[in-house]
Amino acid sequence: MELQSLQPLAQQLFADIRALTFDGVGVTRASYGAGENACARHLEAFARAEGLEVTTDRAGNFVYRDPADTRQGPVIWTGSHLDSVPQGGNYDGLAGIVAGLLVLIAAKRQGVTLPAPLQVIGFRGEESAWFGKAYMGSGALWGKLTAADLALQRREDGVTLGDALAACGADLAAIARQDKLFNPADIRAYVELHIEQGPVMVAREIPVGVVSGIRGNVRHNKIECFGEAQHSGVVPRWLRKDAVFAVSDLIVRLDTHWRALLERGTDLVVTCGVVQTNPAEHSISRVPGYAHFSFEARSKSSDTLEAFYQLVQAEMASIERERGVKFQLDRRLLSEPAVTDPQLCDLMAKACRERGIAHERIPSGAGHDAALFANGGVPSAMVFVRNQHGSHNPHEAMELSDFMLGTQVMADTIAAIPVAPASV
Amino acid sequence: MELQSLQPLAQQLFADIRALTFDGVGVTRASYGAGENACARHLEAFARAEGLEVTTDRAGNFVYRDPADTRQGPVIWTGSHLDSVPQGGNYDGLAGIVAGLLVLIAAKRQGVTLPAPLQVIGFRGEESAWFGKAYMGSGALWGKLTAADLALQRREDGVTLGDALAACGADLAAIARQDKLFNPADIRAYVELHIEQGPVMVAREIPVGVVSGIRGNVRHNKIECFGEAQHSGVVPRWLRKDAVFAVSDLIVRLDTHWRALLERGTDLVVTCGVVQTNPAEHSISRVPGYAHFSFEARSKSSDTLEAFYQLVQAEMASIERERGVKFQLDRRLLSEPAVTDPQLCDLMAKACRERGIAHERIPSGAGHDAALFANGGVPSAMVFVRNQHGSHNPHEAMELSDFMLGTQVMADTIAAIPVAPASV
Repeated sequence: MELQSLQPLAQQLFADIRALTFDGVGVTRASYGAGENACARHLEAFARAEGLEVTTDRAGNFVYRDPADTRQGPVIWTGSHLDSVPQGGNYDGLAGIVAGLLVLIAAKRQGVTLPAPLQVIGFRGEESAWFGKAYMGSGALWGKLTAADLALQRREDGVTLGDALAACGADLAAIARQDKLFNPADIRAYVELHIEQGPVMVAREIPVGVVSGIRGNVRHNKIECFGEAQHSGVVPRWLRKDAVFAVSDLIVRLDTHWRALLERGTDLVVTCGVVQTNPAEHSISRVPGYAHFSFEARSKSSDTLEAFYQLVQAEMASIERERGVKFQLDRRLLSEPAVTDPQLCDLMAKACRERGIAHERIPSGAGHDAALFANGGVPSAMVFVRNQHGSHNPHEAMELSDFMLGTQVMADTIAAIPVAPASV
Repeated sequence: MELQSLQPLAQQLFADIRALTFDGVGVTRASYGAGENACARHLEAFARAEGLEVTTDRAGNFVYRDPADTRQGPVIWTGSHLDSVPQGGNYDGLAGIVAGLLVLIAAKRQGVTLPAPLQVIGFRGEESAWFGKAYMGSGALWGKLTAADLALQRREDGVTLGDALAACGADLAAIARQDKLFNPADIRAYVELHIEQGPVMVAREIPVGVVSGIRGNVRHNKIECFGEAQHSGVVPRWLRKDAVFAVSDLIVRLDTHWRALLERGTDLVVTCGVVQTNPAEHSISRVPGYAHFSFEARSKSSDTLEAFYQLVQAEMASIERERGVKFQLDRRLLSEPAVTDPQLCDLMAKACRERGIAHERIPSGAGHDAALFANGGVPSAMVFVRNQHGSHNPHEAMELSDFMLGTQVMADTIAAIPVAPASV
């Protein structure tokens, strides 16, 4: 199956949808809103014109398939999301749907029989920017939306997620019951193409990435450090209980452990995005008696998250002893990592090698719909396409030639999937 | 000269003045204001009753002396300040004046001839809490108040410092010309007793401290660190420009240098009292692209301040290279340390030894009127008296027995001062 000849088609499709949803700065496709609907309508017309069938599932997501493929049995799913953040980029989400459609079209035009019927899913509601909740479209399918989720309001107009789902024809009663709206056993594999949202592939000069896993995270929104506020001039080091030195010490110790773990090949990123002394009492000439900070560690491995978290606690205890401070932690938040399917990843890497495409295995640090499939027991994999300037901003910049390489790799991978999963 | 018998006198005086200036929480003696005046009036009546003479100098400060001592030639000055911070403690300042008065009274009652006439100075306006400026009373004597200083307004009522000085009979014209209002060559020595404002003497269980010097400081109110804000999940360590890790790294390096310098006997304290990421953009899931912090180092030694400052700059440059960030410094502020007179300090230590009083040489981290005399070329020294809970709060707690030991040491020191300074 050769995808290269479809590049002009992809180019036109991206250009048309960008024009449809351009907001003057970037593209805006609100979850379950105007931009998402405009994008869906255009894709539907495009797909129909190619002889494909377009339906919606019970969660309001779009399903594109070749009506000529009437085989029963397991299906292969591919796809991504229709929505964008406000003033976002054109490719975050859309690229995965267009890639899936190109594979369907190439197979149809070239008379290729894929190992199982291929269905392309256009998910609604993946971005958390609109309702404060991510993976709404795929989450509904998995029966994972709670009553609290359905009561969330869209930031622009206050419409609830429940009303938004009902308005696009979703089976709200089943979703509210948290029914699973499909049978995961029917899905042989879920494969998603997505732009890389980080800078690694640009820095490493590789157009295609085989996603080795989707990072989970462990977080504390607020860790407080209590010391003792004192006159800066009159208190010597041995009598100080300095919250800023204590927090700095902790952060540097975490950095040291992080570096050591990276050198052993562990997947990990660590971030303290917020650090604050108390503006109501801090001063240049006062030993700071209080500081708070945020903590986040992300890894593909649950074990790594747990082990690193224990290191954090051990270092806190050590610093408490050494520096006379006390740390106080708010609720620990945990989001489990998702493991991509090794067999699918190997097929993907093999496709790259056979096409002579430079590639690497890299973890996904951001979450994706694919994580729900992987964690739900569906063999899942992702192709990353090189992209400049990150995502969630109008400056994201994917080269179409990179996109075609990624789509080719996805097509080759799908074409190579054995109908029965490998027995372990 | 034995001071011990005067303890009941001191106790009564402290109690009376506390009652006069009690505000319901602590004592309040506004610079050039009601509490300071009430304190001065009470001291004047007390001194007169003891046969002492009370005058004011050209800056409005009070001068207490024995009118029977009519010797010409150099004089010895002792004293401290009358004012307090709002809701402050009773001993910060007042203790030094009472100590001086006790020495005058003991000499008079016991017929002791001191090496030179002793004058006790009750300074006005030492606390910066009222006009945002410290050492106003002694600064006026030294011709150090600028036009900008004289325009400063008292926080409670907006009265300017110039008007306040004029109202208490000071020679405002001379002060405005920045004339020196006395001849430093006439002052053989300046000796000040003060409560320790830090926790060292309590922790070390010593009632009397010989002040080895008054720390100066080098400061930056705001050092900014510029990195790059990025999605926390998708950017690996080697591509991060994390402002919080950079600032934490710097602070820990400064702490490490500080500890090393302390182990070599260097006098130094280091404080970063303010650390802030930017609330407008920081987030738990964002690599922080910006942080700012304050920096202060204090030392008795100018050389130490300069050397440590250079270390800070070298470490900043190193972190800029290693972590891809940029530091930007605001104006450097320098306040010179003051050196106490070695001969006076030795006399003080000798007095402690001969009385069997446990003592140590300790630096003063806070500033005092004595610093102006030391830096102006007058041989100066300070006695610290042990005090709990720091100062500038109503909980300061000096034991009267400690105060009497400190006053005895000061009396012995003054009695031992050779009339001509030691030739070096």
